[in-house]
Amino acid sequence: MMTQTLPHPLLQALVGDEEVGALFSNEAELSALLRVEAALVQAEAQAGLISDEAAKRITEACGSFQADWAALATGLAQDGAIVPVFVKQLRTAVGEAHAKAVHFGATSQDIIDTALALRLKSAVEIFKYRLDGLIHTLRALKDRDGETPLMAHTRMQQALPFAAADKIDTWIQPLERHRNALDALARLVLAVQLGGPVGTRAELKGHGDAVADALAKILGLNPAPSWHSQRDRIGEFAAFLSLLSGTLGKIGQDVVLMAQNEVAEVRLATGGGSSAMPHKSNPVPAEILVTLARFNAGLLGTLHQALVHENERSGAAWTLEWMVLPQMVVATAAGLRSAQALVGGMSFSASQGRS
Amino acid sequence: MMTQTLPHPLLQALVGDEEVGALFSNEAELSALLRVEAALVQAEAQAGLISDEAAKRITEACGSFQADWAALATGLAQDGAIVPVFVKQLRTAVGEAHAKAVHFGATSQDIIDTALALRLKSAVEIFKYRLDGLIHTLRALKDRDGETPLMAHTRMQQALPFAAADKIDTWIQPLERHRNALDALARLVLAVQLGGPVGTRAELKGHGDAVADALAKILGLNPAPSWHSQRDRIGEFAAFLSLLSGTLGKIGQDVVLMAQNEVAEVRLATGGGSSAMPHKSNPVPAEILVTLARFNAGLLGTLHQALVHENERSGAAWTLEWMVLPQMVVATAAGLRSAQALVGGMSFSASQGRS
Amino acid sequence: MMTQTLPHPLLQALVGDEEVGALFSNEAELSALLRVEAALVQAEAQAGLISDEAAKRITEACGSFQADWAALATGLAQDGAIVPVFVKQLRTAVGEAHAKAVHFGATSQDIIDTALALRLKSAVEIFKYRLDGLIHTLRALKDRDGETPLMAHTRMQQALPFAAADKIDTWIQPLERHRNALDALARLVLAVQLGGPVGTRAELKGHGDAVADALAKILGLNPAPSWHSQRDRIGEFAAFLSLLSGTLGKIGQDVVLMAQNEVAEVRLATGGGSSAMPHKSNPVPAEILVTLARFNAGLLGTLHQALVHENERSGAAWTLEWMVLPQMVVATAAGLRSAQALVGGMSFSASQGRS
Amino acid sequence: MMTQTLPHPLLQALVGDEEVGALFSNEAELSALLRVEAALVQAEAQAGLISDEAAKRITEACGSFQADWAALATGLAQDGAIVPVFVKQLRTAVGEAHAKAVHFGATSQDIIDTALALRLKSAVEIFKYRLDGLIHTLRALKDRDGETPLMAHTRMQQALPFAAADKIDTWIQPLERHRNALDALARLVLAVQLGGPVGTRAELKGHGDAVADALAKILGLNPAPSWHSQRDRIGEFAAFLSLLSGTLGKIGQDVVLMAQNEVAEVRLATGGGSSAMPHKSNPVPAEILVTLARFNAGLLGTLHQALVHENERSGAAWTLEWMVLPQMVVATAAGLRSAQALVGGMSFSASQGRS
Repeated sequence: MMTQTLPHPLLQALVGDEEVGALFSNEAELSALLRVEAALVQAEAQAGLISDEAAKRITEACGSFQADWAALATGLAQDGAIVPVFVKQLRTAVGEAHAKAVHFGATSQDIIDTALALRLKSAVEIFKYRLDGLIHTLRALKDRDGETPLMAHTRMQQALPFAAADKIDTWIQPLERHRNALDALARLVLAVQLGGPVGTRAELKGHGDAVADALAKILGLNPAPSWHSQRDRIGEFAAFLSLLSGTLGKIGQDVVLMAQNEVAEVRLATGGGSSAMPHKSNPVPAEILVTLARFNAGLLGTLHQALVHENERSGAAWTLEWMVLPQMVVATAAGLRSAQALVGGMSFSASQGRS
Repeated sequence: MMTQTLPHPLLQALVGDEEVGALFSNEAELSALLRVEAALVQAEAQAGLISDEAAKRITEACGSFQADWAALATGLAQDGAIVPVFVKQLRTAVGEAHAKAVHFGATSQDIIDTALALRLKSAVEIFKYRLDGLIHTLRALKDRDGETPLMAHTRMQQALPFAAADKIDTWIQPLERHRNALDALARLVLAVQLGGPVGTRAELKGHGDAVADALAKILGLNPAPSWHSQRDRIGEFAAFLSLLSGTLGKIGQDVVLMAQNEVAEVRLATGGGSSAMPHKSNPVPAEILVTLARFNAGLLGTLHQALVHENERSGAAWTLEWMVLPQMVVATAAGLRSAQALVGGMSFSASQGRS
Repeated sequence: MMTQTLPHPLLQALVGDEEVGALFSNEAELSALLRVEAALVQAEAQAGLISDEAAKRITEACGSFQADWAALATGLAQDGAIVPVFVKQLRTAVGEAHAKAVHFGATSQDIIDTALALRLKSAVEIFKYRLDGLIHTLRALKDRDGETPLMAHTRMQQALPFAAADKIDTWIQPLERHRNALDALARLVLAVQLGGPVGTRAELKGHGDAVADALAKILGLNPAPSWHSQRDRIGEFAAFLSLLSGTLGKIGQDVVLMAQNEVAEVRLATGGGSSAMPHKSNPVPAEILVTLARFNAGLLGTLHQALVHENERSGAAWTLEWMVLPQMVVATAAGLRSAQALVGGMSFSASQGRS
Repeated sequence: MMTQTLPHPLLQALVGDEEVGALFSNEAELSALLRVEAALVQAEAQAGLISDEAAKRITEACGSFQADWAALATGLAQDGAIVPVFVKQLRTAVGEAHAKAVHFGATSQDIIDTALALRLKSAVEIFKYRLDGLIHTLRALKDRDGETPLMAHTRMQQALPFAAADKIDTWIQPLERHRNALDALARLVLAVQLGGPVGTRAELKGHGDAVADALAKILGLNPAPSWHSQRDRIGEFAAFLSLLSGTLGKIGQDVVLMAQNEVAEVRLATGGGSSAMPHKSNPVPAEILVTLARFNAGLLGTLHQALVHENERSGAAWTLEWMVLPQMVVATAAGLRSAQALVGGMSFSASQGRS
């Protein structure tokens, strides 16, 4: 009946983000796993734990690896993690001579958590860039429209007159705090995970810390002791996502309220159309900011349930992170994109005074 | 680097459900929208609001409709709902003679909410079937293993001996309640939505109730007054999903605890393998039940935020439903599937008594 | 420095409810525990498990019981439940002759869960009464102001004119559904819990079901098999609370929006004052409805985490219920009270048309 | 029927904290409001906005203020904030000569938010002290029992042997991160709020920044631009509370699992008793840590909904903070207290090896 469908759920056109969404595609996940396995053997070769030849062969194999996707899916469903079957496939690709050196001394969680850190690093870079852009656009808006007289509203009632600059300041200031927080957050969160089966690095025969440090260096991540059962890093990153989304949601809510026909303190570049009412011009990007804020707030509360990560690895808690965190990252990115579109095409109109 | 990727995120192999997931594909969504638009004009022709010829032509066009997916995505991003652009495409497909009769007297929300009800109806049927199957399997397990002596545990300490039948009863009873609740829930939730732009059915010139009733009849849904800004139906369905997932999560958690090596009161059919520890046999389907319960509990709290649906249509609240509810339905289905796999391959082992 | 403080946190004046809050006072909790212990021995005497004399003496002692509150608090902190120390105190009060008959065959959870059901029964009665009153007031408002022309708003933009009656209908209809749901909910939730230490009623020597039925009858609760580790009843009650609070929150949000100075489609009886702006008249009861809806939505997601109730009694999950459910019940009651105050003093004003 | 009840809900004996709970008593709230009003006039006198005499008289009146609590409660219910009636009472206490200088140029939110910061500052000090103590106790436990052989468990199955020191390290490391985070958090969160009615400090006639800085200095808080409608500070503090509670919950869950009779890798100082099973020794403080973690995780998701703080002051969002944040602070404190009690009385027992 229909042709040429989309590569993603349609709803992503409204609340998704192509650039950041791509970081969590199947391909990006596999690519990150391969980068980690390759870097691992390079680090282990540096420490003399495996031969240079093995590291070279495995690195090559990672570069040309062709996944059997169906088998990966089946393996994930069976094992609760993709790595056991993935490593099996990779060992086959590497060939018998060096198969044993693949994934040496590591466990599934080392690879998956470190591969996640790689993706989050890309997301952080994008967030920095977009936050800078959004702050810049808001400052330009303030420069242009800052003197426009507005009516301040408290408790949803008219309070006293103030200026657009006053309003915009309340939007810029938390964004600047979020921008600053990203640097500290990156130092904390973008950390290599290497612990071996139970987090002690014992399988690396005294070279565990050296291998972990080298792995971090190769991948551009921060070194860290094994943190596989300590999920505060994940929880802290998620908190940042919800805080930023909340700030954007506040901007969106403010704009929605100012864009009411009866208030008319802002004009938006383009409005959403209605299937039944041609005169409507709906403040869609502003509404979406509210949606994304409430979505991420709720998901944060859900993800923090996974901080209760029992013993040396919790299948239940870890899987919950997988279901929630990528959605939060993408929703945050969508918020930044929507906010940019909204603010970039917005202008303030003088308040009609106290009615 | 890689070939033949998957049609869905890899993680769905673990926590998704093909059958129920398909109800929320782009294709299924479009198909449901087309069913609703076709039924609408049929109902309107019955009421004499549009000609039989128009209804016939539109129904045909719905049957052979070829979507311009890219334009749908763009329209959704612009308008905040897919319907304005979808209706435009459908009108073009219908041809000028009857274009105006398409979507007559309806608004985006009528089509989208009713199309959702159609999908939920299919989901309810699947849930009924799977619940029946799961209860049946649990009863068979009770028949076979019910007399196995187990140790009851309270507050995570050994309490007193009891039998497997006692344990299984605590799993079956809430499932039976959920099964019974589905019938009442279906009467409430699987309801047609027809209100026109602001919910009054005024555009249907006195025939609004008749059209709504006929629409419901054609689609196999329950008749109802317009409920577009009353989201308790959605909230109640979501609550059911979380309750059922919670019951399954409790079963999963019990099994995980009984499957501990030190406790060994159950044997599972197959365990998940580890990339580092060949001796491991992980209770993956049981863990996943816990994950899905916590996921849906959190999403329920998020979706209920959308009950605060301002005015006659809230873009912000409605979009939040779109982001959350389908995930909850699929997660519930995944839970039923995992529970069936778990219980179907499980056997009880006599407790080693109080250690 | 200060005198005569309040018997409750000051904030309760804004978001609490005296009548329903009193159901969860220390005194009300103890009183309910005593009622359950007395009814239990009466039921057991009927079944011949204990002597009539013992039942009589224990019932008397329950009637005149003087708690050592400090010891109850210490016992709760030590045991994780109040019942062990409470039963010890009650046995002392009963005297040696019949001390053993106190709490015969029961466990802490039997008493606490049944005592909760007693309080919820009172809450349900109050909710019914208040819902009836609120619906009545809304109908009267519709009768009086229903023809007032308003502007419908979709996606926070002016849509089309409609009448106050149309708006009020969207408030009444879900309230009627909630009112109807209360009866079915009461049958499900207001159930006696009796299971003994591990839920099998084994300690009651074949008379367990008879004792449970008699206990239910004496207390005016529904009979039920032991449900101590099946928390769907609690989860379902909480879902109802959030749904009702959400409906009230939608009413509150609508009123807040209509009460904006620029919109002025409603006039409120009395507004909240400001410490800095004497001209302000804030729509406090309407705002509070939004607050309470978001509060209960979030708490619902939190409470459903406790559905994963491990084994035959989960200290962790059960305590979470204690922390969350009473708050939800009180917040719901506060919403009904606020809504009544809001709606009772509200009048509609004709819309100024499309600006 | 009963005598000498408790000054707080009984449940607080289990999940509350006397020291931190006292920071949120009615008396502590009033005391903080008085400190802020006194410091405000002192700062304003320094800036020459009011006379030294007025500042002196108001400071005296704050010191001897006798609240009319019933009127405060009524005012809070009416105005949605306590400050309007509180200021009226304070002005009466000050006397006509200087009444106008009370609360000069400030608004309710300035006083309430700054008074909150004062209480949070005390909470932060207590958290620092308790975190130091807990880390110290864990290090001592590691020194004493660190070599005890344990079995590591992944995905709830026995994995490989390791030592108690390895386990304890996974508990200490995140606590150290939380301890470090407190300093940065204090700089961000413990900030004075002064903005006047709409956040511009306009009422302070060019002296706004000077007054705010002096106010901060007098109160020992950090200076900051007005942040009344920027709630990221509150959201960030709440995120910290949930992260810390989650780390404690993980410790609790680990202990609960190790304390199972079948596992027996830890011995606890004292166990909770049962009303029906004298042999039980329940790991109550460990269970409570799990409860508090799930409670705060859920409340975090609820509180972050309040980041969408509309316009220059949101009654709905602000009130939601009041309902949620104090609970989170107290629950975090209760977690630290329970963890200290748990860890302080715990010893490890050698694992019985792979069963």
